[in-house]
Amino acid sequence: MWKKIEGGITKPQGFLASGVHAGFKKAKLDLALLSFENTVSAGVFTQNAFAASPVKLTKKHLALGNLKALVVNSGNANACTGLQGDNNAYLTAKIAADMLKIKPEDVAVSSTGVIGQQLDMETMKSGLLTATSTLSKEGANDFALAIMTTDTYPKEITLECTIDGTTYSLSGVAKGSGMIHPNMATMLCFITTDWPIDQITLQSYLKEAVEESFNAISVDGDTSTNDMCLIFSSQILPKPAKEKETIFLDGLKKICGYLAKTIVLDGEGATKLLQIKVQNALSQEDAKLAAKAVAHSPLVKTAFFGEDANWGRILCAVGYSGSTVDPNKTDLYLGNWQIVKNGQGTDISESVLAPILKEREIEITIDLNLGDSEYIFQTTDLSYDYVKINGSYRS
Amino acid sequence: MWKKIEGGITKPQGFLASGVHAGFKKAKLDLALLSFENTVSAGVFTQNAFAASPVKLTKKHLALGNLKALVVNSGNANACTGLQGDNNAYLTAKIAADMLKIKPEDVAVSSTGVIGQQLDMETMKSGLLTATSTLSKEGANDFALAIMTTDTYPKEITLECTIDGTTYSLSGVAKGSGMIHPNMATMLCFITTDWPIDQITLQSYLKEAVEESFNAISVDGDTSTNDMCLIFSSQILPKPAKEKETIFLDGLKKICGYLAKTIVLDGEGATKLLQIKVQNALSQEDAKLAAKAVAHSPLVKTAFFGEDANWGRILCAVGYSGSTVDPNKTDLYLGNWQIVKNGQGTDISESVLAPILKEREIEITIDLNLGDSEYIFQTTDLSYDYVKINGSYRS
Repeated sequence: MWKKIEGGITKPQGFLASGVHAGFKKAKLDLALLSFENTVSAGVFTQNAFAASPVKLTKKHLALGNLKALVVNSGNANACTGLQGDNNAYLTAKIAADMLKIKPEDVAVSSTGVIGQQLDMETMKSGLLTATSTLSKEGANDFALAIMTTDTYPKEITLECTIDGTTYSLSGVAKGSGMIHPNMATMLCFITTDWPIDQITLQSYLKEAVEESFNAISVDGDTSTNDMCLIFSSQILPKPAKEKETIFLDGLKKICGYLAKTIVLDGEGATKLLQIKVQNALSQEDAKLAAKAVAHSPLVKTAFFGEDANWGRILCAVGYSGSTVDPNKTDLYLGNWQIVKNGQGTDISESVLAPILKEREIEITIDLNLGDSEYIFQTTDLSYDYVKINGSYRS
Repeated sequence: MWKKIEGGITKPQGFLASGVHAGFKKAKLDLALLSFENTVSAGVFTQNAFAASPVKLTKKHLALGNLKALVVNSGNANACTGLQGDNNAYLTAKIAADMLKIKPEDVAVSSTGVIGQQLDMETMKSGLLTATSTLSKEGANDFALAIMTTDTYPKEITLECTIDGTTYSLSGVAKGSGMIHPNMATMLCFITTDWPIDQITLQSYLKEAVEESFNAISVDGDTSTNDMCLIFSSQILPKPAKEKETIFLDGLKKICGYLAKTIVLDGEGATKLLQIKVQNALSQEDAKLAAKAVAHSPLVKTAFFGEDANWGRILCAVGYSGSTVDPNKTDLYLGNWQIVKNGQGTDISESVLAPILKEREIEITIDLNLGDSEYIFQTTDLSYDYVKINGSYRS
């Protein structure tokens, strides 16, 4: 139904964007602006207790239900910055609002970068002056570039779908999951669409799509203080029939799934993408526990970096995950090859597995043979470069 | 009260030991035997659902309350080995029992090493023949050497204490927490004493001591299938008055604390020991959650490898730990230097912190300022060598 097309988050009707160099970073684009009117918005946010100032502010503004602009800066996370940080987040919204002739509470704010440092508001002000004056349909790619930190490439996808003669589009842009020194991973994702939809449905769809995508990936298991995923639906095109909304949900899941995978592939120091699938678990919660334990195990991650089909480490992680397991029923597959049957190694030869272990994407399937629940989690291997990138000095 | 003395696990009266080369490993000692009579025993075991065959057998034999010998092999973990593995664990007990003229259920069995491979029982038999015939008071050090895997040195400690004219001793030996390829971390600890004590008290004391020591350390957060800690108390010396038993508990905690710390210091690729102390938490559970999240964060661990006082990563881990925190009340100390006050960085200069970050042991204190609970967890940094050791090919 949905097909992939060229273009970024200004492809859906009703959105203008820009990306400029304000000065939070030395030379690269570091301030992004998205402007829209008459939209319905939804969002999900980090659960971290140290949620950054822009997260707290945007939650509040989203709840008021009248967002008309989004400001994102990279290079400074405005996290662990106390009351002054809260004030600066609000001031950012206020400055943008004045320039765009809207209200401060109509502006969503998002930040990513160094933590523990105050935003320079003069930089913000002069940057926003350029950003507001360069808003255009062509600004989507600059927007994608301006939200990057240690990302090695921008992450965008746009889909299109025609229903009853009307062509709708859906587009997403994301950054992460690189940790910039001296910082933590931050995942930001912004989605636009011209498929009109009510707020409650939009929020529930976004939650569902994020649960299966961004909440099912990790590079190192650390949840940042700045994570945020927002979606804006303009109300310009005619509304499709209610029963067509599952098509929208399907598109949204494609967008989130693609961006999540791209983030993992661009994970710091990652040489491989590991897809951990737990199937036939007693419950969804069990499947999740087991998949996450395997995905977060440094022993498993280093083994795959070393291209070693070390199934003992995988079973071990399943065993301590808290998931209900029967050791004598547990099977394990690497790609299509069964390497563990009923909790014991099969006699498959390492030469058969060697080519699979050299692939850039590896599928690991753990079959608990206890029920019918399934969960898929994606992660990276753990390489020398991960240690290098994250162990390097700040100064 | 307790003072450290020379000697190993045969120092307490009533114990004989040996350590021999059976052939599970190429050349090094790999089979250890401890023999004793008339003892009271207690033990704690891995919670991993894939508990290895020797763990299951020893739990059963311990419950029967009549242990008289302990057999430990290294080089093969007898884990993920199914029914044949269970049979081989029992057969090990049976062979040792026949040679020692006791019953199979009087024998505790423990294994560490490669997983997924069956024990060679001929190797076990010939090894046990030498081990039983060389049992002696002098065998303690060979015992300590024979249980090692990737440990770079044996881990032993012996304490002595005189009460009402009688001198009691307490000795412990441990191995871990190295992962041998293709294997997972295994922590084994065996403690002997000639302080007579009843079984219920011994079990509860062991549990308490382990909780504060072995359960409060990690190298990579992976709980092995073979972990086991056993204690044997011979009943030869006169029993001290009941009210003196807290002295015994104190000694036991010293033994476990010392061995746990030694294991971390010998952790694979470790260049530093990180002591994470969470204080003034709302509850003990909160303190534990926060300390463990920080200790398991790869971002924190790589930062310390890089000698970077990256407090943002520490707060971030506290923030997603699930512990109750108030971001505006959280303080953080590196050694005695306060680097975060009320959730924001202090202006302490990096040159002041640099020498602390170069130390082999670093104390990180997180003050939640919400209650009066405290928890201390010890871990290592995450180095290139960790990735190298654990990412290397099996063959």
